[in-house]
Amino acid sequence: MEGLKLTSLSGKARTMVEAGPLRFGAGFAVIAGPCSVESEDQLMTIARAVKAAGADALRGGAFKPRTSPYAFQGLGLKALKVLDKARRETGLPVVTEVLDPRDVSWVSEFVDILQVGARNMQNFSLLKEVGKGYRPVLLKRGMHSTLEEWLNSAEYVLSAGNPRVILCERGIRTFEVYTRNTLDLSAVPAVRELSHLPVIVDPTHGTGRVSLIEPMSMAAAAAGADGLIVEVHHNPGEALSDKAQALLPEAFGTLVGKVRAIRACREGLEGGIQ
Amino acid sequence: MEGLKLTSLSGKARTMVEAGPLRFGAGFAVIAGPCSVESEDQLMTIARAVKAAGADALRGGAFKPRTSPYAFQGLGLKALKVLDKARRETGLPVVTEVLDPRDVSWVSEFVDILQVGARNMQNFSLLKEVGKGYRPVLLKRGMHSTLEEWLNSAEYVLSAGNPRVILCERGIRTFEVYTRNTLDLSAVPAVRELSHLPVIVDPTHGTGRVSLIEPMSMAAAAAGADGLIVEVHHNPGEALSDKAQALLPEAFGTLVGKVRAIRACREGLEGGIQ
Amino acid sequence: MEGLKLTSLSGKARTMVEAGPLRFGAGFAVIAGPCSVESEDQLMTIARAVKAAGADALRGGAFKPRTSPYAFQGLGLKALKVLDKARRETGLPVVTEVLDPRDVSWVSEFVDILQVGARNMQNFSLLKEVGKGYRPVLLKRGMHSTLEEWLNSAEYVLSAGNPRVILCERGIRTFEVYTRNTLDLSAVPAVRELSHLPVIVDPTHGTGRVSLIEPMSMAAAAAGADGLIVEVHHNPGEALSDKAQALLPEAFGTLVGKVRAIRACREGLEGGIQ
Amino acid sequence: MEGLKLTSLSGKARTMVEAGPLRFGAGFAVIAGPCSVESEDQLMTIARAVKAAGADALRGGAFKPRTSPYAFQGLGLKALKVLDKARRETGLPVVTEVLDPRDVSWVSEFVDILQVGARNMQNFSLLKEVGKGYRPVLLKRGMHSTLEEWLNSAEYVLSAGNPRVILCERGIRTFEVYTRNTLDLSAVPAVRELSHLPVIVDPTHGTGRVSLIEPMSMAAAAAGADGLIVEVHHNPGEALSDKAQALLPEAFGTLVGKVRAIRACREGLEGGIQ
Repeated sequence: MEGLKLTSLSGKARTMVEAGPLRFGAGFAVIAGPCSVESEDQLMTIARAVKAAGADALRGGAFKPRTSPYAFQGLGLKALKVLDKARRETGLPVVTEVLDPRDVSWVSEFVDILQVGARNMQNFSLLKEVGKGYRPVLLKRGMHSTLEEWLNSAEYVLSAGNPRVILCERGIRTFEVYTRNTLDLSAVPAVRELSHLPVIVDPTHGTGRVSLIEPMSMAAAAAGADGLIVEVHHNPGEALSDKAQALLPEAFGTLVGKVRAIRACREGLEGGIQ
Repeated sequence: MEGLKLTSLSGKARTMVEAGPLRFGAGFAVIAGPCSVESEDQLMTIARAVKAAGADALRGGAFKPRTSPYAFQGLGLKALKVLDKARRETGLPVVTEVLDPRDVSWVSEFVDILQVGARNMQNFSLLKEVGKGYRPVLLKRGMHSTLEEWLNSAEYVLSAGNPRVILCERGIRTFEVYTRNTLDLSAVPAVRELSHLPVIVDPTHGTGRVSLIEPMSMAAAAAGADGLIVEVHHNPGEALSDKAQALLPEAFGTLVGKVRAIRACREGLEGGIQ
Repeated sequence: MEGLKLTSLSGKARTMVEAGPLRFGAGFAVIAGPCSVESEDQLMTIARAVKAAGADALRGGAFKPRTSPYAFQGLGLKALKVLDKARRETGLPVVTEVLDPRDVSWVSEFVDILQVGARNMQNFSLLKEVGKGYRPVLLKRGMHSTLEEWLNSAEYVLSAGNPRVILCERGIRTFEVYTRNTLDLSAVPAVRELSHLPVIVDPTHGTGRVSLIEPMSMAAAAAGADGLIVEVHHNPGEALSDKAQALLPEAFGTLVGKVRAIRACREGLEGGIQ
Repeated sequence: MEGLKLTSLSGKARTMVEAGPLRFGAGFAVIAGPCSVESEDQLMTIARAVKAAGADALRGGAFKPRTSPYAFQGLGLKALKVLDKARRETGLPVVTEVLDPRDVSWVSEFVDILQVGARNMQNFSLLKEVGKGYRPVLLKRGMHSTLEEWLNSAEYVLSAGNPRVILCERGIRTFEVYTRNTLDLSAVPAVRELSHLPVIVDPTHGTGRVSLIEPMSMAAAAAGADGLIVEVHHNPGEALSDKAQALLPEAFGTLVGKVRAIRACREGLEGGIQ
């Protein structure tokens, strides 16, 4: 694809992105946690549970991009303080989404990885701002975006000076109604042949159905993904957002075991290196 | 549709949005001009030409949301000064796109209408910021957005205090490749039955083909649109962006005549009121 | 587009397709009637009503392509006999859909125009069979089909020997849920610039909403369509299929008047010829 | 989903479909072969190669559903005789596509499994005809079809008396252009929770890119698919159809090994039963 000077794989080694002790692109990284930080109790409970179940990093929303202005918009700074506390207690690196270029600098002091969500994949002001920052950027694919557009958005971050981009496939919008989105797993091997960046998969938003998350996570590992980001809640029915698609910690623990087994099988087949 | 407290038509009269001498929702408003402001000469030439051809307002991009970071990104402040000059000379109200919430306040001093583009339809920080402002907002439909999501984005602006929202259908993304997007004209009568806001159509981005712009503009008028926004350039082959889809001023003049005739015919059929 | 030897406009005059007294491609043809023929009473009542309201041809399904095998599948031969009776009484040419190549020959004795539906646009056996026949073919665009594929399907009919093809845009499948399909009116000017065949529009299936049928019919006329096919039922709530989208005869009469006015306006603008 | 009396999983055991020595739904079945049968030499060469590489069944097109009437349409009876010969020599069951209800009966004498292709998923005459037959039916998902529509098409076959249906996901049509279609692997666990029928995956048409076939095949196995259907050609550059997406026999052999390893890993995780 033309114009991809910095993200193109040609002539470059695969990139490894470090976030605290975690390295994306070396091994298989599992990020888990609630859609939104709802309270200190809620987050600490879930953080401990996902740590125990084998997660490598913690996710939690402080600023929520909600379709309606009347829906829960996140706890903001209060959520960030709780995420920081969870990070210190569990040792897990923390991921949160930023929506506004004005928030990039100060939010970077609380978390390890900044997420740019699907709705903001072509928010070029935000891309430039995280590109000027020092935190790794988890860049979700827009629900309407071609692979070329997605890699161009990564190019915005890299060209602004920040080489630490992790791509994340989270489903595209199609006519199918049984699933919330159509998880496009072919994007995983495709961006791996087009770019040197690590790519993970979000089966939660990609399917929107609890029953499909485990099989699609196993499929993601088999397709060569570098990790997963999964919504986990200890009490999904009470969640303030995305209640229909969060896994219970026990189900998440089972998933981690199976996914790591598939990953190990794939590594064996590919000679230990992908 | 649920949760649409402020944009819903039920029990409300249709809204008329004023921008200088122009009123969206009363009569048929035609906005025209280049994709990007490229120079003072270029803009002044086009501004005079579209004024002469019957345009009611002038468009011109100062900040361009380009897929690639290496593509022309717009002239910024320099473009705004030129737009301001064109406004003073021609008397045409001016529309430009804003991409960053930090730009809303100062850009509002140079132009009459702020555009929120398709890629930013769910940039909630930007929506809140233009909602706190005083300028009318031209809110384009996201290329992947349902009508409900689009109206919810308008709701963000209205609920922040700014009632001056003009909706703009600009095509959605489908599998069809002959056209750049699929212009969804059914969105016009649909949002007119769901909301009280004026709705205009962008046949330029909606089709991406010069030959389809005139028939689709006539169709938009017949479907009940409150206006059009059309790209016009006096030398399309030399344009710095969107060169394949800009009309020459003469073709634009012909289009305006035909569209106003269809509009008049429709008004006669609907008893003078829509 | 490559390979379109027979449907391509280049170097050819526009085709006029005759069906009894009706000529598609010369003037504006309105086909109306129920989704399915349900009984002699039902069809005769509707046939008289649409004739009185200004229809040029009568539609009525004898074989219904239903998603579920347990849904009403049509009355078959019994329906064809009723259609034939309605044709004789009203003088309106009659359109019905064929689903099976084995039915083409004998069904042709009862009706004036054979419809190939959206689901069968790439049923190549059926296309070849209607191509060997003598009846005009109303070829609907597949809900997933590009313009190139659609014209190639027309090419199957023409290359088998039957030049009498009428194209019909009926909506494509997208992510939008407010409408049943997304009516792609840009297909009208597009296939008119690519091919010499007449093209009509089906606003009923294209929108799936009674309230959108009239504005989209007016838009179709303004875009240059050669006609419409519209579902009409005297008692939509009792219809055996498509009950949510049939117009009452009175609403259909109003629509015909408005659409013919828009058409006349367009003809005036285009110099009497399109 | 409503109306699915016969395909619904509720209260039923998973179905196993037998085709000669092969059982779909018990173990993992790999079907391979050329897009089209081009000559006896070509087919016999490929048949022996895929047999040696571990295929369980042979595919080969005799009647080709081609977008253009001028493209190679298949060798018909001649191809069937060659397929029959290959079956007798290799012992592999043979799959071929039928396009016309008139061909179902006699084609069934030459092959073991009848394929209904994506373009014919809602060709209800063809579905009823294969439903009256005795051969297992490989029912591909339409490129525009929801899961509910797909299962309803299976319901047509089952309700006509033939319980031997194998579902096949082959990619849906989206806006993405890097891949030929978007392979929807979530369809695999979804139809497994909705129906009792076996489901296989076609990574060849699903991606249209040789480099993506192996990783997506491994992903399909991990997601729980009951098998694969893959295009293999000993000389892809010379193939009369689909030349860009056929695997060489050696690459296919590697794929089979990896896919069976992933499958075995998954079976271990799921306790030997799926």
